[in-house]
Amino acid sequence: MSSRPNSLSRRGFTATAAATATALATTGAAPSAASPSATVEALRLPATEPSLPQRCREIARALLLRGSDGRDLVPSYRQVLVGSGLPRSAARPKNVLVVGAGPAGLVTAMLLRRAGHTVTLLEANGNRAGGRIKTFRTGGHERAQQPFADPRQYAEFGAMRIPQSHPLVMALLDHLGVERQKFRLVDEHPDGTPAQQTWIHVNGLRVRRADYARNPQRVNRSFGIPRALWNTPSSKILSDALAPVRDEFSTLGPDGRRVDKPVDEMIAGWARVIERFGDWSMRRFLSEFAKLDEGTIDLVGCLEDITSRLPLSFLHSFLDAALISPQTTFWELRGGTAALPDALLRQVEPCVRFDRRVTRIEYWHPDRPHTDTPHVSAAGPHVWVDTVSEGRDGAPVREQFTADLAVITVPFSGLRHIQVAPLMSYGKRRAVTELHYDSATKVVLEFSRRWWEFTEDDWKRELATIAPRLYDSYRTGRAPDDGSLLGRHDSVTGERLSDNQRAYYAAYRSASRDQPGPVASLGGGSVSDNPNRFTFNPSHPVPGSQGGVVLASYTWADDAMRWDAFDDEARYPHALAGLQEIYGQRIEVFYTGAGRTQSWARDPYAYGEASVLLPGQHTELFHNIATPEGPLHFAGDHTSLKPAWIEGALESAVRAALEVHHTP
Amino acid sequence: MSSRPNSLSRRGFTATAAATATALATTGAAPSAASPSATVEALRLPATEPSLPQRCREIARALLLRGSDGRDLVPSYRQVLVGSGLPRSAARPKNVLVVGAGPAGLVTAMLLRRAGHTVTLLEANGNRAGGRIKTFRTGGHERAQQPFADPRQYAEFGAMRIPQSHPLVMALLDHLGVERQKFRLVDEHPDGTPAQQTWIHVNGLRVRRADYARNPQRVNRSFGIPRALWNTPSSKILSDALAPVRDEFSTLGPDGRRVDKPVDEMIAGWARVIERFGDWSMRRFLSEFAKLDEGTIDLVGCLEDITSRLPLSFLHSFLDAALISPQTTFWELRGGTAALPDALLRQVEPCVRFDRRVTRIEYWHPDRPHTDTPHVSAAGPHVWVDTVSEGRDGAPVREQFTADLAVITVPFSGLRHIQVAPLMSYGKRRAVTELHYDSATKVVLEFSRRWWEFTEDDWKRELATIAPRLYDSYRTGRAPDDGSLLGRHDSVTGERLSDNQRAYYAAYRSASRDQPGPVASLGGGSVSDNPNRFTFNPSHPVPGSQGGVVLASYTWADDAMRWDAFDDEARYPHALAGLQEIYGQRIEVFYTGAGRTQSWARDPYAYGEASVLLPGQHTELFHNIATPEGPLHFAGDHTSLKPAWIEGALESAVRAALEVHHTP
Repeated sequence: MSSRPNSLSRRGFTATAAATATALATTGAAPSAASPSATVEALRLPATEPSLPQRCREIARALLLRGSDGRDLVPSYRQVLVGSGLPRSAARPKNVLVVGAGPAGLVTAMLLRRAGHTVTLLEANGNRAGGRIKTFRTGGHERAQQPFADPRQYAEFGAMRIPQSHPLVMALLDHLGVERQKFRLVDEHPDGTPAQQTWIHVNGLRVRRADYARNPQRVNRSFGIPRALWNTPSSKILSDALAPVRDEFSTLGPDGRRVDKPVDEMIAGWARVIERFGDWSMRRFLSEFAKLDEGTIDLVGCLEDITSRLPLSFLHSFLDAALISPQTTFWELRGGTAALPDALLRQVEPCVRFDRRVTRIEYWHPDRPHTDTPHVSAAGPHVWVDTVSEGRDGAPVREQFTADLAVITVPFSGLRHIQVAPLMSYGKRRAVTELHYDSATKVVLEFSRRWWEFTEDDWKRELATIAPRLYDSYRTGRAPDDGSLLGRHDSVTGERLSDNQRAYYAAYRSASRDQPGPVASLGGGSVSDNPNRFTFNPSHPVPGSQGGVVLASYTWADDAMRWDAFDDEARYPHALAGLQEIYGQRIEVFYTGAGRTQSWARDPYAYGEASVLLPGQHTELFHNIATPEGPLHFAGDHTSLKPAWIEGALESAVRAALEVHHTP
Repeated sequence: MSSRPNSLSRRGFTATAAATATALATTGAAPSAASPSATVEALRLPATEPSLPQRCREIARALLLRGSDGRDLVPSYRQVLVGSGLPRSAARPKNVLVVGAGPAGLVTAMLLRRAGHTVTLLEANGNRAGGRIKTFRTGGHERAQQPFADPRQYAEFGAMRIPQSHPLVMALLDHLGVERQKFRLVDEHPDGTPAQQTWIHVNGLRVRRADYARNPQRVNRSFGIPRALWNTPSSKILSDALAPVRDEFSTLGPDGRRVDKPVDEMIAGWARVIERFGDWSMRRFLSEFAKLDEGTIDLVGCLEDITSRLPLSFLHSFLDAALISPQTTFWELRGGTAALPDALLRQVEPCVRFDRRVTRIEYWHPDRPHTDTPHVSAAGPHVWVDTVSEGRDGAPVREQFTADLAVITVPFSGLRHIQVAPLMSYGKRRAVTELHYDSATKVVLEFSRRWWEFTEDDWKRELATIAPRLYDSYRTGRAPDDGSLLGRHDSVTGERLSDNQRAYYAAYRSASRDQPGPVASLGGGSVSDNPNRFTFNPSHPVPGSQGGVVLASYTWADDAMRWDAFDDEARYPHALAGLQEIYGQRIEVFYTGAGRTQSWARDPYAYGEASVLLPGQHTELFHNIATPEGPLHFAGDHTSLKPAWIEGALESAVRAALEVHHTP
């Protein structure tokens, strides 16, 4: 088979389009005057439509936060964020609407207010700010309900760890006085040394992380991988595969750490990577470039959490791996990540309107038709939005707002259902329609004791308080599996465990009944090929509480979809069964019956976990994501190259605040 | 950048694995005796692990339903299905469990019962059979609720059209006496000639299909595509792109129709296609092979409904396009597609157990460990399953069943959460974990009159019955948009339209207010780049009713995800707004307030629309999908090469029934 001749290649066309655009700009032709179709074309081909190499260089600069001259923008962004604020200027104070009170919206509003602008921050959610920072806690957004049996307990459903290497968020936390403590990505001994006693549980095997690091052969062979890789841990297989790409912009130092190349080379190297692999999936990279066989890809995918994202953009997974060094420290916030939006909200509280879902936006753009925009005009206002309350407690309230400018921080998956008139540019509309949002689902379970910190002696002692021979019954797989032992420890009141629930738990119980040894460490978690996939134990005790909330299942993409068809209540028995498969049946005696779960793809305020791009979307859509449409500006982590990270939201907030502030 | 040397390529490894397996088989080594890891490896590398070319040939045979000698299996399958049944044999009657009462399970059960086996058919759903055949109708599964204002109306949420070229389903319908009528994929005049008066509504343009076919330039240019393709309709751009691939197994006849090559060449040609493109996405194919630029891919994707599936397997979309000829007739079933499961259920009713969700399966396999399978043994039973009722009306009921054999028809997305002991083979477990299931979401709205069949005179007459100048108000975009005109025609009782709903509809109303001309045709539907994407009007009036139910939005994959975050109730205003954007505001006067919606990815019995494979999954997973695991057999459309089609379910049912019947 040969491919068709005579067609333009994708890249060829990109150049053609740019050339046409330049021609239009040079001749001064006004294509919008001709016919409706000409109008749309003019939107598609603005004079600034960049060529592919230009796009790649822009993406490289955006991800490194470098100005057009290569200058590091972090210091000036930090200055705006936590120092002197937006530059003092003679520009008139403006009336600005900010849509969405996630981190990007909160910070944009805070910066603009400080600079003297009049800001209204609209939030669809009736009971909380924070967006995909969401802490389940007593007195939190579910005010009427105490989420866990122990009122001191809390759990994260969104952002849960903050890398030290994200400078803006670290600066903001310091500035706001939000306290942090270490997030233990891998389990540790109490003295802070790595323990790695949690499990790799795959193909019917259960191997401690420390043992896998020493001798990966047993696990590796269970995936049928080639002999040459039997003794290489999966993380090293992956980093070896990525190394030639990293070599484009960094060099491996003698100490094994990577050092960035000089800035010009670094940007050029990143641009080459983006151009070469911009339309590759991670699966294609591992198969065609790294030449890994399907068994090895399955091993790496399973253990390094990339299986479900294999069909998605190579760049997405690579950026995460490349921008956060393996040596970085992660932090969590004391009392929950919501401590950050709590602190931000205090800065902007007077300007926030909760329970105002934006349903329609009209804006003034001199070059676009205004037949459907009765509320805006050249004289102003330039932006008009319509909102509706969710009206769950009565009649819906509709309220309209006007402004000079607006900053839209709504995820594009949600913006898709907001009516916008006039039509935005072709590139923007295409991004709103096509930008891929990933699923991510978490299920947490509360336990009355931190059994993962137990030694085997602790287990003996605590189980003996329930029944003299219970410890041995569990050890030999003969303990009753009818649900009667759920929450049987004295520390559990049992009021959250009805007979019906016990019946479900028994029906969905784990098939496996062998009992491994204790974990006896702090934080970290296990990986399994069962539906739970990734589990995390709390990094720290909650002061005053002997219990803890375990992230029993953290899944992405297709792994998450396998949970999303279930109602919330139906997930807890499965999550407990999966956890028991890893840690043994006996953990059930401490289960309080309190589970909580969050499907980000099903969340009516988030519409997905984050923009995790498809192959090709970085080069085809990204340059249109943050571009303003007349008086509409765009912020949010999806407008950055760090989607799903608070840092990306902050970068975008500073950028959008600067745009708005500098608008004449 | 160069790729790493010295690594095995994916394909290289496939050959290695097969060679290793042969070696094991030759030496008679018993790897399962050694250690747990050796056991798993033996499962991974059975002596029959096929090489990549073998796998591709198997897939080619499976999709063409050809035996190993190239013989067409359709006649013998048809004979089993609607003729003499399973072959008369001396094999002892067996006790068989069939799990799942979708079309595959119903037919498997029917065939095995007729052949004298004892069958129990378990269905998780408490109120209906049919799986992803799901008709919303009065007296249907929602017994207490009449879904539409007119009790005669009904709507499809699953299978809605059956191609004439699917021989097994056509034979079964005839056999069961289920009546069918033409499904109008494209709108027609009452005399059956094509009308093509429905709309292509993209980039702010609205062009009738007939006009687009005659002159595609205006629409095509709105995507900024190269001049060479300005005058080529999107369907031809796509079929031209696919033609070189079709040439591998068919030739273009002088009449423009494709003729299959002789069977051996056809199978070999398909095998080449599968090997060449098995790990390509549709996007990669259109970009790298067909050399289409990104604007043209966006045009074709938008109009031909492949944008949301661009990252998924090229083969999936190609198979659908290649196996169903563009000339084929489509049928729908009178009274709804549920007429088929209704008829099948009558054949098997005594053996069906509703409200029995299978939570656990134990099976006997001589070569696998049985530490966690107390209920099965070499002496029998060989299969044991545990079930639980949903217990929505009281305490859950648990019930256990035993059998000699079982046929599992549950989608793998659901099987993922069923505990199975002992572990199934590595290949099967990997397929259960990774097989991609797509999202698909439908939103239907009921209207009291079939306005899409109206001429402009009909509109004038009917709107005049509401208010003398209303027709002109709509035509000039000046009719009130506060929701007061919803369901204002006399034919609407209005009892389903509360003030709150009117407020929401007003808040979410369409931004566009221009009023296009009437559609005045039967069936077919429009395509839009708004969130609704694809709409379908009913092909036929429902006898006795003046109204009709419009499929206002039919979306897949990412397009569907954009709806799935919304609660059911929140979708109807958006769906109506999108429909009004296409057809004009005035359709609202006939809206009865009755909407219905189905998100297949959120359905707790379906767990997705269907298995729509990712790049590479045909060659890596498919050969492990249908393979029995000891006494467990597998059926369902996902075990065929026609996922989402009833035909695929029927092929799999006949195959599984033959497997079970012939088991000694």
